[in-house]
Amino acid sequence: MNEQRAGAAAGVEEEQARYREALEAELRSFLDRQRSVMAGVSADVDALMDAISGLVSGGKRLRALLGYWGWRGAGGAALAEEPVRAGAALELFQSAALIHDDIIDRSATRRGAPSVHERFTALHARSGWALDATRFGHAAAILTGDLCLSFSEEAFTAVGPAAGVGTPGRRIFNTMRAEVMAGQYLDILEEVAGPSRSRTEAVARAGTVIRYKSAKYSTEHPLGIGGALAGADEALLEAYSAFSLPLGEAFQLRDDVLGVFGDPRTTGKPAGDDLREGKRTMLVALALDTADGAAAAELERGLGRGDLDLDEVGRLRDIIASAGALEATERLIGRLADEAFAALARLDVDPVVRTALEALGRAAVQRAS
Amino acid sequence: MNEQRAGAAAGVEEEQARYREALEAELRSFLDRQRSVMAGVSADVDALMDAISGLVSGGKRLRALLGYWGWRGAGGAALAEEPVRAGAALELFQSAALIHDDIIDRSATRRGAPSVHERFTALHARSGWALDATRFGHAAAILTGDLCLSFSEEAFTAVGPAAGVGTPGRRIFNTMRAEVMAGQYLDILEEVAGPSRSRTEAVARAGTVIRYKSAKYSTEHPLGIGGALAGADEALLEAYSAFSLPLGEAFQLRDDVLGVFGDPRTTGKPAGDDLREGKRTMLVALALDTADGAAAAELERGLGRGDLDLDEVGRLRDIIASAGALEATERLIGRLADEAFAALARLDVDPVVRTALEALGRAAVQRAS
Repeated sequence: MNEQRAGAAAGVEEEQARYREALEAELRSFLDRQRSVMAGVSADVDALMDAISGLVSGGKRLRALLGYWGWRGAGGAALAEEPVRAGAALELFQSAALIHDDIIDRSATRRGAPSVHERFTALHARSGWALDATRFGHAAAILTGDLCLSFSEEAFTAVGPAAGVGTPGRRIFNTMRAEVMAGQYLDILEEVAGPSRSRTEAVARAGTVIRYKSAKYSTEHPLGIGGALAGADEALLEAYSAFSLPLGEAFQLRDDVLGVFGDPRTTGKPAGDDLREGKRTMLVALALDTADGAAAAELERGLGRGDLDLDEVGRLRDIIASAGALEATERLIGRLADEAFAALARLDVDPVVRTALEALGRAAVQRAS
Repeated sequence: MNEQRAGAAAGVEEEQARYREALEAELRSFLDRQRSVMAGVSADVDALMDAISGLVSGGKRLRALLGYWGWRGAGGAALAEEPVRAGAALELFQSAALIHDDIIDRSATRRGAPSVHERFTALHARSGWALDATRFGHAAAILTGDLCLSFSEEAFTAVGPAAGVGTPGRRIFNTMRAEVMAGQYLDILEEVAGPSRSRTEAVARAGTVIRYKSAKYSTEHPLGIGGALAGADEALLEAYSAFSLPLGEAFQLRDDVLGVFGDPRTTGKPAGDDLREGKRTMLVALALDTADGAAAAELERGLGRGDLDLDEVGRLRDIIASAGALEATERLIGRLADEAFAALARLDVDPVVRTALEALGRAAVQRAS
């Protein structure tokens, strides 16, 4: 590492730590204000606020940080209010999406703790309430997610004029929301419709899901929102996308690998959870495409079986690995990451910003959780 | 009817018809724009847009119309763009709330047609897809509701500067969203926690649910948003509330009566649906409070039993009526309506506006569906 890069790295670390502090303070004060409004309705509503606060307090802040460096790369002032508020909006949006996603996927845990619907199911059981605990848990989590989704927009509007009607930042924020919901629908659609649709197009369909459910939402749009809020022109936004879109695809492919091969101790989710949920990820599409007939049929039969035991998960993992799909996915992750970092090297931004984006990007594709 | 009132009534009818036309055109063009964006993601996303368009095309437009007359009463120009766009936002918000509400309540129909989750369940069955049709229906409807909720905010922001950050209109819009979600939570909480909570406070708890889940959301806030967008001062907004809050409470009590005693041919919902869902409405709280021990126990046992047949529904209806709860609720509706219309008579607005609000109010509390 040369001197300039070492200096940039130290600068990034300090600035990023200060941004994180400001972001946490913003999230806390936003949620405190909402909590006092909700307390005026009824003390019972505290349960929704507790669920949101608990979820929002975790996470890696990838989206907020990308938004921040997108802002800085477009000439925005260090530690300004706009990217702090936009970051809070992105983290609240992510929490809202996770709450509903966990209901949809019947995920019992999130970040190593019970998911929101499980929290409410447990509250019901603990309180000895009437009727069905699971159904109450789902209903309460639907409403908690709706509340959190509303909060995310309220936080985004609080950015001020830079996020006003007709601005590029607002346009990207709207696109992000609509695209991720469409992408999530395509994801659950593939679980049920995939088996009866063309297998040769399964890899292309998995690519569409990755792009909309994850890549655009997790990396491209947060970076773009930050840039747009600081007045980035179209050329810069396109250069951002050339880096962030392949990065986001690699990020999601890493997620898919972890969802099948990850260690529960680091992912906070049961081993092979994606297989039980019947997720037809790129990894699975590649395996179905290349495995021999008997192995492909066995994988097909196992997908979406919620009662798969560890031995059966192990067997399906072997099929995926033996078909070369794990290796192919890792190669794809590598290729996309190379593409992203090559685009980053060409990006005409302050070295501090480039260093920050490189570190975030490396963490996103190399993570184990 | 004197001449001035007859003239006002004719004026209302024509202006309201023109507003409705503008509102429908706005909703259509908004959804057409969204549909073309979504088509860029995948043709499969059409299913979500169809579900939203289908739902949005129905309904009485109560909230949009209240918003419109709230705007006009505060001096806003006839048929201006702001209340058209705000009305579209209110109707989209209502659709989003209904989509999730129907999942929560397991309602199979809405406005005489299949509810959104039932639409997707039927699509799954018709297509011969894999895994569970009901689960797919719920998941797809959660996402459709989220998309519609995002659309409602996008439509509200499109109102322009009058709905910008920090404006009274935006503040009321935010409050409305948060309060209705809190109110809906209190509603489902009462279904499960009600039996083990103080029976003497059940009427007060039912009052809180009515206020937040319905009255503030269906009448007070729409009227207030319209007024605020046109620059209404605090005094006018308070005078609006003095009319619209009791009106909204009467509106919801009418809904509660229809939910137990309504005719399926006009309500579009199965007879006694609220009883099967275990809704602890004011009507039910009053009945539990005044029925004798054996009858109250029978009502308590029947609430929330999804398999109640028509005879059993009839028996529970008799218990509620015999306990005097139906009559007491009707009296309460009458008292709240009187309070609302007395406040309306004192309201210092153009006679056209007063006539319009009176007609909307009468329809809301006297309706049979």
